[in-house]
Amino acid sequence: MITLHGYWRSGASWRVRIALNLKAREYRDVAHDLRRGEQADAAYCAINPQAMVPALIVDDAVLTQSLAMLEWLEERYPDPPLLPADPTARAHVRGIALTVACDLHPLGNLRVLNSLRQDLGADEDQVRAWIARWAAPGFAAIETLIARHGGRFAYGDTPTIADCCLIPQIYAARRFGVDLKDFPRIRAIDAHCAHLPAFERAHPANQPDAD
Amino acid sequence: MITLHGYWRSGASWRVRIALNLKAREYRDVAHDLRRGEQADAAYCAINPQAMVPALIVDDAVLTQSLAMLEWLEERYPDPPLLPADPTARAHVRGIALTVACDLHPLGNLRVLNSLRQDLGADEDQVRAWIARWAAPGFAAIETLIARHGGRFAYGDTPTIADCCLIPQIYAARRFGVDLKDFPRIRAIDAHCAHLPAFERAHPANQPDAD
Repeated sequence: MITLHGYWRSGASWRVRIALNLKAREYRDVAHDLRRGEQADAAYCAINPQAMVPALIVDDAVLTQSLAMLEWLEERYPDPPLLPADPTARAHVRGIALTVACDLHPLGNLRVLNSLRQDLGADEDQVRAWIARWAAPGFAAIETLIARHGGRFAYGDTPTIADCCLIPQIYAARRFGVDLKDFPRIRAIDAHCAHLPAFERAHPANQPDAD
Repeated sequence: MITLHGYWRSGASWRVRIALNLKAREYRDVAHDLRRGEQADAAYCAINPQAMVPALIVDDAVLTQSLAMLEWLEERYPDPPLLPADPTARAHVRGIALTVACDLHPLGNLRVLNSLRQDLGADEDQVRAWIARWAAPGFAAIETLIARHGGRFAYGDTPTIADCCLIPQIYAARRFGVDLKDFPRIRAIDAHCAHLPAFERAHPANQPDAD
Protein backbone atom coordinates (compact mmCIF):
# COMPACT_ATOMS: atom_id res chain seq x y z
CA MET A 1 0.00 0.00 0.00
CA ILE A 2 1.20 3.51 -0.85
CA THR A 3 0.87 6.23 1.81
CA LEU A 4 0.82 9.91 0.87
CA HIS A 5 1.64 12.43 3.58
CA GLY A 6 0.13 15.66 2.33
CA TYR A 7 -2.18 18.61 2.84
CA TRP A 8 -5.32 19.41 0.91
CA ARG A 9 -4.16 22.78 -0.42
CA SER A 10 -0.47 21.91 -0.94
CA GLY A 11 0.20 22.18 -4.67
CA ALA A 12 3.05 19.66 -4.47
CA SER A 13 0.81 17.08 -2.71
CA TRP A 14 -1.88 17.71 -5.32
CA ARG A 15 0.56 16.88 -8.16
CA VAL A 16 1.14 13.46 -6.64
CA ARG A 17 -2.58 12.84 -6.06
CA ILE A 18 -3.26 13.48 -9.77
CA ALA A 19 -0.51 11.06 -10.81
CA LEU A 20 -1.67 8.37 -8.36
CA ASN A 21 -5.19 8.69 -9.77
CA LEU A 22 -4.02 8.65 -13.40
CA LYS A 23 -2.03 5.49 -12.61
CA ALA A 24 -5.09 4.05 -10.81
CA ARG A 25 -3.10 3.40 -7.65
CA GLU A 26 -4.96 3.21 -4.35
CA TYR A 27 -3.26 5.10 -1.53
CA ARG A 28 -3.73 5.98 2.10
CA ASP A 29 -3.83 9.71 2.83
CA VAL A 30 -2.24 11.19 5.98
CA ALA A 31 -2.99 14.89 6.40
CA HIS A 32 -0.68 17.45 8.05
CA ASP A 33 -2.20 20.88 8.63
CA LEU A 34 0.45 23.33 7.39
CA ARG A 35 -1.35 26.29 8.96
CA ARG A 36 -0.78 24.69 12.37
CA GLY A 37 2.82 23.77 11.51
CA GLU A 38 2.11 20.04 11.84
CA GLN A 39 4.73 19.29 9.17
CA ALA A 40 7.35 20.25 11.78
CA ASP A 41 6.23 17.61 14.30
CA ALA A 42 9.10 15.36 15.36
CA ALA A 43 7.34 12.17 14.23
CA TYR A 44 6.91 13.55 10.71
CA CYS A 45 10.44 14.99 10.55
CA ALA A 46 11.74 11.47 11.24
CA ILE A 47 10.00 10.51 7.99
CA ASN A 48 10.80 13.61 5.92
CA PRO A 49 13.77 15.54 7.33
CA GLN A 50 12.80 18.54 5.22
CA ALA A 51 9.60 19.01 7.29
CA MET A 52 7.62 19.63 4.13
CA VAL A 53 4.80 17.79 2.39
CA PRO A 54 4.43 15.59 0.48
CA ALA A 55 6.23 12.42 1.48
CA LEU A 56 5.38 9.12 -0.18
CA ILE A 57 5.85 5.79 1.59
CA VAL A 58 6.36 2.99 -0.93
CA ASP A 59 7.81 -0.51 -0.59
CA ASP A 60 9.08 0.47 2.91
CA ALA A 61 11.02 3.42 1.45
CA VAL A 62 10.38 7.11 2.07
CA LEU A 63 10.35 9.30 -1.03
CA THR A 64 10.65 13.08 -0.81
CA GLN A 65 10.10 15.76 -3.48
CA SER A 66 6.94 15.55 -5.57
CA LEU A 67 8.70 15.36 -8.95
CA ALA A 68 10.80 12.44 -7.75
CA MET A 69 7.52 10.75 -6.79
CA LEU A 70 6.03 11.38 -10.24
CA GLU A 71 9.12 9.86 -11.88
CA TRP A 72 8.99 6.89 -9.48
CA LEU A 73 5.32 6.27 -10.30
CA GLU A 74 6.17 6.45 -14.01
CA GLU A 75 9.00 3.93 -13.68
CA ARG A 76 7.18 1.56 -11.31
CA TYR A 77 3.76 1.69 -13.02
CA PRO A 78 4.47 2.60 -16.66
CA ASP A 79 0.87 2.23 -17.82
CA PRO A 80 -0.68 4.64 -18.66
CA PRO A 81 2.48 6.64 -19.43
CA LEU A 82 2.80 10.18 -18.07
CA LEU A 83 5.91 10.83 -20.18
CA PRO A 84 6.35 10.30 -23.93
CA ALA A 85 8.89 7.74 -25.17
CA ASP A 86 11.35 9.99 -27.01
CA PRO A 87 14.08 11.59 -24.84
CA THR A 88 13.64 15.05 -26.39
CA ALA A 89 9.85 14.91 -25.98
CA ARG A 90 10.37 13.82 -22.37
CA ALA A 91 12.64 16.82 -21.85
CA HIS A 92 9.91 19.13 -23.19
CA VAL A 93 7.38 17.69 -20.73
CA ARG A 94 9.84 17.93 -17.86
CA GLY A 95 10.67 21.50 -18.92
CA ILE A 96 7.08 22.57 -18.24
CA ALA A 97 6.84 20.57 -15.01
CA LEU A 98 10.11 22.06 -13.74
CA THR A 99 9.15 25.61 -14.69
CA VAL A 100 6.24 25.19 -12.29
CA ALA A 101 8.21 23.31 -9.65
CA CYS A 102 11.36 25.47 -9.67
CA ASP A 103 10.36 28.92 -10.88
CA LEU A 104 6.72 29.40 -9.85
CA HIS A 105 5.73 27.26 -6.87
CA PRO A 106 8.72 27.83 -4.51
CA LEU A 107 8.24 31.60 -4.56
CA GLY A 108 4.57 31.42 -3.55
CA ASN A 109 4.92 28.81 -0.83
CA LEU A 110 3.26 29.50 2.54
CA ARG A 111 6.64 29.55 4.30
CA VAL A 112 7.99 32.12 1.84
CA LEU A 113 4.93 34.38 1.98
CA ASN A 114 5.02 34.25 5.78
CA SER A 115 8.67 35.28 5.72
CA LEU A 116 7.89 38.23 3.44
CA ARG A 117 5.29 39.37 5.97
CA GLN A 118 7.15 38.65 9.18
CA ASP A 119 10.79 39.23 8.28
CA LEU A 120 10.52 41.93 5.63
CA GLY A 121 7.32 43.63 6.76
CA ALA A 122 5.48 43.12 3.47
CA ASP A 123 1.78 44.02 3.50
CA GLU A 124 -0.83 42.01 1.57
CA ASP A 125 -0.58 44.25 -1.51
CA GLN A 126 3.16 43.62 -1.61
CA VAL A 127 2.61 39.88 -1.16
CA ARG A 128 0.19 39.84 -4.10
CA ALA A 129 2.60 41.90 -6.22
CA TRP A 130 5.39 39.45 -5.32
CA ILE A 131 3.31 36.48 -6.51
CA ALA A 132 2.24 38.26 -9.69
CA ARG A 133 5.85 39.26 -10.46
CA TRP A 134 6.97 35.61 -10.75
CA ALA A 135 3.69 34.25 -12.11
CA ALA A 136 3.64 36.52 -15.16
CA PRO A 137 6.92 35.40 -16.81
CA GLY A 138 6.48 31.79 -15.66
CA PHE A 139 3.01 31.34 -17.13
CA ALA A 140 3.99 33.29 -20.26
CA ALA A 141 6.88 30.89 -20.86
CA ILE A 142 4.64 27.88 -20.29
CA GLU A 143 2.04 29.31 -22.71
CA THR A 144 4.79 29.48 -25.37
CA LEU A 145 6.00 25.95 -24.62
CA ILE A 146 2.40 24.69 -24.92
CA ALA A 147 2.09 26.49 -28.27
CA ARG A 148 5.16 24.56 -29.44
CA HIS A 149 4.08 21.06 -28.44
CA GLY A 150 0.72 21.13 -26.63
CA GLY A 151 -2.71 19.86 -27.59
CA ARG A 152 -5.61 19.01 -25.35
CA PHE A 153 -2.97 18.76 -22.61
CA ALA A 154 0.24 20.69 -21.96
CA TYR A 155 2.17 18.27 -24.16
CA GLY A 156 0.17 16.45 -26.83
CA ASP A 157 -3.24 14.92 -26.33
CA THR A 158 -2.73 12.74 -23.24
CA PRO A 159 -1.96 13.84 -19.67
CA THR A 160 1.67 14.02 -18.56
CA ILE A 161 3.58 15.09 -15.48
CA ALA A 162 3.43 18.62 -16.95
CA ASP A 163 -0.34 18.68 -16.36
CA CYS A 164 0.11 17.21 -12.87
CA CYS A 165 2.20 20.29 -12.03
CA LEU A 166 0.38 22.92 -14.07
CA ILE A 167 -3.19 22.41 -12.82
CA PRO A 168 -2.41 23.03 -9.12
CA GLN A 169 -0.36 26.10 -10.04
CA ILE A 170 -3.30 27.61 -11.95
CA TYR A 171 -5.46 27.20 -8.83
CA ALA A 172 -2.80 28.89 -6.68
CA ALA A 173 -2.51 31.75 -9.19
CA ARG A 174 -6.27 32.37 -9.18
CA ARG A 175 -6.35 32.25 -5.39
CA PHE A 176 -3.93 35.17 -5.30
CA GLY A 177 -5.68 37.12 -8.05
CA VAL A 178 -3.14 36.51 -10.83
CA ASP A 179 -4.64 37.52 -14.18
CA LEU A 180 -4.55 34.59 -16.63
CA LYS A 181 -6.38 36.28 -19.53
CA ASP A 182 -3.24 36.38 -21.69
CA PHE A 183 -2.81 32.60 -21.44
CA PRO A 184 -5.68 31.02 -23.40
CA ARG A 185 -3.92 27.70 -23.91
CA ILE A 186 -3.30 27.31 -20.19
CA ARG A 187 -6.92 28.17 -19.41
CA ALA A 188 -8.19 25.68 -22.02
CA ILE A 189 -6.11 22.86 -20.51
CA ASP A 190 -7.37 23.76 -17.05
CA ALA A 191 -10.99 23.67 -18.25
CA HIS A 192 -10.40 20.35 -20.01
CA CYS A 193 -8.80 18.69 -16.98
CA ALA A 194 -11.41 19.98 -14.51
CA HIS A 195 -13.93 17.34 -15.56
CA LEU A 196 -11.60 14.35 -15.79
CA PRO A 197 -12.09 12.00 -12.81
CA ALA A 198 -8.36 11.68 -11.96
CA PHE A 199 -8.01 15.45 -11.74
CA GLU A 200 -11.39 16.02 -10.08
CA ARG A 201 -10.71 13.50 -7.29
CA ALA A 202 -7.32 15.13 -6.64
CA HIS A 203 -8.76 18.64 -6.25
CA PRO A 204 -8.20 20.23 -2.81
CA ALA A 205 -11.93 20.68 -2.25
CA ASN A 206 -12.39 16.91 -2.52
CA GLN A 207 -9.82 15.95 0.14
CA PRO A 208 -10.89 14.65 3.57
CA ASP A 209 -8.91 17.38 5.39
CA ALA A 210 -10.36 20.28 3.33
CA ASP A 211 -12.19 23.03 5.21
CA MET B 1 27.08 19.40 -31.55
CA ILE B 2 25.49 20.43 -28.27
CA THR B 3 25.27 24.14 -27.47
CA LEU B 4 24.88 25.36 -23.88
CA HIS B 5 23.55 28.87 -23.35
CA GLY B 6 24.72 29.76 -19.85
CA TYR B 7 26.55 32.09 -17.52
CA TRP B 8 29.69 31.33 -15.56
CA ARG B 9 28.16 31.91 -12.11
CA SER B 10 24.69 30.51 -12.81
CA GLY B 11 24.26 27.47 -10.58
CA ALA B 12 21.77 25.89 -12.99
CA SER B 13 24.19 26.25 -15.93
CA TRP B 14 26.97 24.79 -13.78
CA ARG B 15 24.87 21.65 -13.09
CA VAL B 16 24.64 20.99 -16.81
CA ARG B 17 28.35 21.63 -17.37
CA ILE B 18 29.21 18.99 -14.75
CA ALA B 19 26.90 16.44 -16.37
CA LEU B 20 28.22 17.18 -19.88
CA ASN B 21 31.75 16.66 -18.57
CA LEU B 22 30.87 13.45 -16.70
CA LYS B 23 29.26 12.15 -19.91
CA ALA B 24 32.36 13.27 -21.88
CA ARG B 25 30.23 15.30 -24.30
CA GLU B 26 31.87 18.18 -26.15
CA TYR B 27 29.75 21.32 -26.25
CA ARG B 28 29.81 24.88 -27.48
CA ASP B 29 29.37 27.49 -24.79
CA VAL B 30 27.36 30.70 -25.41
CA ALA B 31 27.57 33.14 -22.51
CA HIS B 32 24.83 35.59 -21.47
CA ASP B 33 25.84 38.12 -18.81
CA LEU B 34 22.98 38.06 -16.30
CA ARG B 35 24.25 41.21 -14.58
CA ARG B 36 23.65 43.09 -17.82
CA GLY B 37 20.29 41.40 -18.37
CA GLU B 38 21.47 39.76 -21.59
CA GLN B 39 19.18 36.78 -20.94
CA ALA B 40 16.25 39.11 -21.76
CA ASP B 41 17.56 39.93 -25.26
CA ALA B 42 14.92 39.22 -27.92
CA ALA B 43 17.18 36.80 -29.81
CA TYR B 44 17.67 34.68 -26.71
CA CYS B 45 14.00 34.84 -25.68
CA ALA B 46 13.14 33.35 -29.07
CA ILE B 47 15.22 30.36 -27.94
CA ASN B 48 14.15 30.22 -24.30
CA PRO B 49 10.85 32.03 -23.70
CA GLN B 50 11.57 32.03 -19.98
CA ALA B 51 14.51 34.42 -20.49
CA MET B 52 16.62 32.41 -18.09
CA VAL B 53 19.79 30.36 -18.44
CA PRO B 54 20.58 27.61 -19.19
CA ALA B 55 19.16 26.50 -22.52
CA LEU B 56 20.56 23.45 -24.27
CA ILE B 57 20.40 23.06 -28.04
CA VAL B 58 20.45 19.38 -29.04
CA ASP B 59 19.48 17.57 -32.23
CA ASP B 60 17.86 20.86 -33.43
CA ALA B 61 15.63 20.98 -30.32
CA VAL B 62 15.73 23.57 -27.55
CA LEU B 63 15.68 22.17 -24.02
CA THR B 64 14.87 24.35 -21.02
CA GLN B 65 15.25 23.66 -17.28
CA SER B 66 18.55 22.23 -16.09
CA LEU B 67 17.08 19.09 -14.50
CA ALA B 68 15.30 18.22 -17.74
CA MET B 69 18.71 18.55 -19.44
CA LEU B 70 20.34 16.22 -16.90
CA GLU B 71 17.61 13.62 -17.48
CA TRP B 72 17.96 14.03 -21.26
CA LEU B 73 21.73 13.51 -21.06
CA GLU B 74 21.15 10.41 -18.93
CA GLU B 75 18.65 8.94 -21.41
CA ARG B 76 20.59 9.88 -24.53
CA TYR B 77 24.07 9.00 -23.26
CA PRO B 78 23.53 6.36 -20.55
CA ASP B 79 27.21 5.67 -19.94
CA PRO B 80 28.47 6.49 -17.36
CA PRO B 81 25.14 6.50 -15.52
CA LEU B 82 24.24 9.50 -13.35
CA LEU B 83 21.24 7.69 -11.87
CA PRO B 84 21.15 4.22 -10.28
CA ALA B 85 19.08 1.47 -11.91
CA ASP B 86 16.48 0.81 -9.21
CA PRO B 87 13.40 3.12 -9.25
CA THR B 88 13.49 3.76 -5.51
CA ALA B 89 17.21 4.52 -5.58
CA ARG B 90 16.59 6.88 -8.51
CA ALA B 91 13.91 8.64 -6.45
CA HIS B 92 16.39 9.13 -3.61
CA VAL B 93 18.92 10.73 -5.97
CA ARG B 94 16.24 12.92 -7.53
CA GLY B 95 15.02 13.85 -4.04
CA ILE B 96 18.36 15.48 -3.27
CA ALA B 97 18.64 17.12 -6.70
CA LEU B 98 15.13 18.54 -6.41
CA THR B 99 15.67 19.79 -2.86
CA VAL B 100 18.43 21.95 -4.32
CA ALA B 101 16.53 22.87 -7.48
CA CYS B 102 13.14 23.60 -5.89
CA ASP B 103 13.76 24.60 -2.29
CA LEU B 104 17.20 26.20 -2.20
CA HIS B 105 18.26 27.64 -5.55
CA PRO B 106 15.06 29.51 -6.60
CA LEU B 107 15.02 31.57 -3.41
CA GLY B 108 18.60 32.80 -3.85
CA ASN B 109 18.42 33.61 -7.55
CA LEU B 110 19.72 36.98 -8.72
CA ARG B 111 16.24 38.03 -9.89
CA VAL B 112 14.75 37.21 -6.49
CA LEU B 113 17.47 38.95 -4.48
CA ASN B 114 17.12 42.01 -6.69
CA SER B 115 13.38 42.04 -6.07
CA LEU B 116 13.91 41.86 -2.30
CA ARG B 117 16.16 44.91 -2.57
CA GLN B 118 14.19 46.94 -5.08
CA ASP B 119 10.57 46.02 -4.35
CA LEU B 120 10.66 45.30 -0.63
CA GLY B 121 13.51 47.59 0.41
CA ALA B 122 15.65 44.83 1.92
CA ASP B 123 19.18 45.84 2.91
CA GLU B 124 22.18 43.50 2.49
CA ASP B 125 21.85 42.11 6.04
CA GLN B 126 18.25 41.18 5.31
CA VAL B 127 19.24 39.62 1.99
CA ARG B 128 21.85 37.46 3.75
CA ALA B 129 19.35 36.49 6.46
CA TRP B 130 16.86 35.55 3.73
CA ILE B 131 19.40 33.24 2.07
CA ALA B 132 20.44 31.69 5.39
CA ARG B 133 16.79 31.12 6.37
CA TRP B 134 16.21 28.76 3.42
CA ALA B 135 19.72 27.34 3.29
CA ALA B 136 19.70 26.02 6.87
CA PRO B 137 16.72 23.62 6.62
CA GLY B 138 17.54 22.67 3.02
CA PHE B 139 21.14 21.68 3.70
CA ALA B 140 20.14 19.99 6.98
CA ALA B 141 17.64 17.81 5.11
CA ILE B 142 20.23 16.96 2.45
CA GLU B 143 22.78 16.07 5.16
CA THR B 144 20.23 13.58 6.58
CA LEU B 145 19.45 12.14 3.13
CA ILE B 146 23.20 11.70 2.52
CA ALA B 147 23.50 9.91 5.89
CA ARG B 148 20.82 7.50 4.70
CA HIS B 149 22.28 6.59 1.31
CA GLY B 150 25.45 8.58 0.62
CA GLY B 151 29.07 7.55 0.34
CA ARG B 152 31.90 9.35 -1.40
CA PHE B 153 29.13 11.13 -3.30
CA ALA B 154 25.64 12.29 -2.29
CA TYR B 155 24.24 8.89 -3.22
CA GLY B 156 26.64 5.97 -3.11
CA ASP B 157 30.18 6.01 -4.43
CA THR B 158 29.74 7.34 -7.96
CA PRO B 159 28.58 10.78 -9.07
CA THR B 160 24.89 11.31 -9.79
CA ILE B 161 22.65 14.20 -10.76
CA ALA B 162 22.41 14.90 -7.00
CA ASP B 163 26.09 15.92 -7.01
CA CYS B 164 25.60 17.97 -10.19
CA CYS B 165 23.05 20.06 -8.25
CA LEU B 166 24.64 20.03 -4.80
CA ILE B 167 28.15 21.26 -5.65
CA PRO B 168 27.03 24.58 -7.25
CA GLN B 169 24.66 25.20 -4.32
CA ILE B 170 27.50 24.82 -1.81
CA TYR B 171 29.47 27.48 -3.72
CA ALA B 172 26.46 29.81 -3.68
CA ALA B 173 25.97 29.25 0.06
CA ARG B 174 29.60 30.07 0.82
CA ARG B 175 29.42 33.17 -1.35
CA PHE B 176 26.64 34.51 0.85
CA GLY B 177 28.30 33.51 4.12
CA VAL B 178 26.08 30.53 4.97
CA ASP B 179 27.66 28.50 7.77
CA LEU B 180 28.13 24.86 6.68
CA LYS B 181 29.93 23.62 9.81
CA ASP B 182 26.96 21.44 10.85
CA PHE B 183 27.03 19.56 7.55
CA PRO B 184 30.23 17.46 7.52
CA ARG B 185 28.97 15.00 4.90
CA ILE B 186 28.14 17.81 2.49
CA ARG B 187 31.55 19.40 3.04
CA ALA B 188 33.32 16.06 2.50
CA ILE B 189 31.54 15.50 -0.81
CA ASP B 190 32.41 19.04 -1.88
CA ALA B 191 36.08 18.46 -1.03
CA HIS B 192 36.08 15.14 -2.86
CA CYS B 193 34.50 16.56 -6.04
CA ALA B 194 36.72 19.65 -6.13
CA HIS B 195 39.64 17.68 -7.58
CA LEU B 196 37.75 15.56 -10.09
CA PRO B 197 38.35 16.84 -13.65
CA ALA B 198 34.64 16.86 -14.64
CA PHE B 199 33.78 19.05 -11.67
CA GLU B 200 36.90 21.18 -11.87
CA ARG B 201 36.38 22.06 -15.55
CA ALA B 202 32.77 23.02 -14.80
CA HIS B 203 33.68 25.45 -11.99
CA PRO B 204 32.67 29.08 -12.62
CA ALA B 205 36.28 30.27 -12.29
CA ASN B 206 37.24 28.08 -15.24
CA GLN B 207 34.64 29.43 -17.68
CA PRO B 208 35.61 31.72 -20.57
CA ASP B 209 33.18 34.45 -19.44
CA ALA B 210 34.37 34.50 -15.80
CA ASP B 211 35.68 37.78 -14.44
